[in-house]
Amino acid sequence: MAMPFRFELLHQDAGSAARLGHFTTPHGAVDMPAFMPVGTQASVKGVDAGRLRESGAQMILANTYHLLLRPGAETVAALGGLHTLMGWDGPILTDSGGFQIFSLAERATIDEHGAVFRSHIDGARVELTPEDSIAVQERLGSDVAMQLDHVVALPNDREVIAEAMRRSVRWALRCRAAAKRPDQALFAIVQGGLDAELRAESAERLVAMDFAGYAIGGLSVGETPEEMYETLHVTLPHLPRDRPRYLMGVGRPIDLLEAIALGVDLFDCVMPTRNGRNALAFTDRGPLRLRNLQHALDREPLEPDCPCPACRHSRGYLRHLFQANEMLGPILLSIHNLTYYQRLLARARQAIAEDRFTAFCAERRQGWNRGQDDIAVFGLRIAD
Amino acid sequence: MAMPFRFELLHQDAGSAARLGHFTTPHGAVDMPAFMPVGTQASVKGVDAGRLRESGAQMILANTYHLLLRPGAETVAALGGLHTLMGWDGPILTDSGGFQIFSLAERATIDEHGAVFRSHIDGARVELTPEDSIAVQERLGSDVAMQLDHVVALPNDREVIAEAMRRSVRWALRCRAAAKRPDQALFAIVQGGLDAELRAESAERLVAMDFAGYAIGGLSVGETPEEMYETLHVTLPHLPRDRPRYLMGVGRPIDLLEAIALGVDLFDCVMPTRNGRNALAFTDRGPLRLRNLQHALDREPLEPDCPCPACRHSRGYLRHLFQANEMLGPILLSIHNLTYYQRLLARARQAIAEDRFTAFCAERRQGWNRGQDDIAVFGLRIAD
Repeated sequence: MAMPFRFELLHQDAGSAARLGHFTTPHGAVDMPAFMPVGTQASVKGVDAGRLRESGAQMILANTYHLLLRPGAETVAALGGLHTLMGWDGPILTDSGGFQIFSLAERATIDEHGAVFRSHIDGARVELTPEDSIAVQERLGSDVAMQLDHVVALPNDREVIAEAMRRSVRWALRCRAAAKRPDQALFAIVQGGLDAELRAESAERLVAMDFAGYAIGGLSVGETPEEMYETLHVTLPHLPRDRPRYLMGVGRPIDLLEAIALGVDLFDCVMPTRNGRNALAFTDRGPLRLRNLQHALDREPLEPDCPCPACRHSRGYLRHLFQANEMLGPILLSIHNLTYYQRLLARARQAIAEDRFTAFCAERRQGWNRGQDDIAVFGLRIAD
Repeated sequence: MAMPFRFELLHQDAGSAARLGHFTTPHGAVDMPAFMPVGTQASVKGVDAGRLRESGAQMILANTYHLLLRPGAETVAALGGLHTLMGWDGPILTDSGGFQIFSLAERATIDEHGAVFRSHIDGARVELTPEDSIAVQERLGSDVAMQLDHVVALPNDREVIAEAMRRSVRWALRCRAAAKRPDQALFAIVQGGLDAELRAESAERLVAMDFAGYAIGGLSVGETPEEMYETLHVTLPHLPRDRPRYLMGVGRPIDLLEAIALGVDLFDCVMPTRNGRNALAFTDRGPLRLRNLQHALDREPLEPDCPCPACRHSRGYLRHLFQANEMLGPILLSIHNLTYYQRLLARARQAIAEDRFTAFCAERRQGWNRGQDDIAVFGLRIAD
């Protein structure tokens, strides 16, 4: 098991900080920048493993918090681990639970030792320390584990944000000490809210510990896109060039391009699936709301050149499925949106390789602005 | 468009009345005995067209009543007809609406002219005559249209059943007079409740009119399986050997085999999809209820030799999906059950070809009886 993980920086765009990378894991490689569909409960909602692979996805995400509560890490292990369970032979990243303890758990109390909370499913008392989180992720068997982090709401007192950030740094060290699987990489999570100094401190202290990859956490929690971009702008220069950089829980197509331009390599978000279930389809000409009457007699597909199963049908049919409450509507739009995200990222990679990423972003932005509609920004950083 | 429809009787089983047939339509051929998945609202619930084809389905069913109410026949026609709408290039049969007027419509009144009822969706007043039903089915563009029939509840007064049967015979004639599309075949529907004389009268009068195929209707409405088999037994000898025979809305796997043994060629039923959505999987060893705790740690697939996407996973994973309310559970079990039905029918055809259909039925019955469980008989003759 020598060198099961390797990140190669293949090229940097001439006009931006966008990076073309290649990340190798024990379950195969990922072309970066990459987008991970979210399989919170070991299922990308409404999408079977074959359709998920056909969408172009190379790496997917699952959630430690959810799987710990149901069906439990021992059950996942007894059923052969996450890859076998999901029928997914590509790379899998597991989130550590830190964000869900912040956003989902009931009556959570967090101290230096770890978190204690009540399950949002059945109220059971659960304890999760940094060591527990690693042990659970090792049982799940993901390729990439995330450190447990302490997430706090924004806006907040600087001292609260600083303390949570420094605790997260200490927890990163404990996670690394606890990690035993040579076939599982551990990523640290940079915290620090919207404060440039705290972000820099977090990044530098984590980088000094030398992790396999670095995530930017604590964003997509209510700040404006501009605040998020600015935070990336001041954080990314503190991260090493030779490690993958993962922006957690982001985002809209435009957010992905903005973050890629600043040097982000990896994303996850529920937007494609959650919006798909709510009848919103992403296209190069902006989002389409399929319940709108204007689509009732439209014989065109969502996108003429999209190879996904939804685009073998007319918009009129897709509208009918939603109007008739047929589950095939959410299924097909989820697949389309996942395919849209993957095709967007593939084109972004191509543009970086050809040193025209800035022009690519301008083209996409122009196309999206054509749409009369604006994207529903719900579920930015929520497990799906 | 010469001879777009042709039914060839290829072989009859040596030990039963089971028939091997081949039915050619403008959208391809169907090997019979055949099972049609039910796409009530122009969607087989939870199953995209590609997965539907992969299940082995050759011909599918859609419902005139539902599509008339939503999105409307004009909308289906404007979107290119049913085949284009659904992305299904194989044969499609449309039910006429007679059964749904009986089972779903509100405040239905039926006289010789036709039916008047209130939409179960929005209460709108709708009139449907035999001529209307044909006109709608011609707009939908199915390969096989069904005559409008007058369905009554069982048990019922013999005179009520007789009058509904004779009205259905008169409506069959009106439907035939109204039918104009040379690329659409019209099947008549034999009625008459559980009364052998009435069934014989219905069959003989319809056969005298010479239809492209004959359905047995008015069953699966609450009678026992034995009553249903007995009715088939006394009805089928009155139907011509050289036309397909379609038992509407049936049924459980055992019902299919019993009916095939009596000479039925074609079936439709919501059981595979509706039971799949309710966590019940059909197997050769009887049905499995995936919510049961006994499956929690089971690494085996539903069936070891099944090629469907569900059988790439463990029973433990499928149980988890249902426990976690993931829509992938209903999706995968629907696909598995449709695949099970198609494989069952394919094996039945093979057994007929080899003159061992009776032995095949005995083997299957023995396997099914092994299961501790009994199949939930819900949705026998209900649009899905």
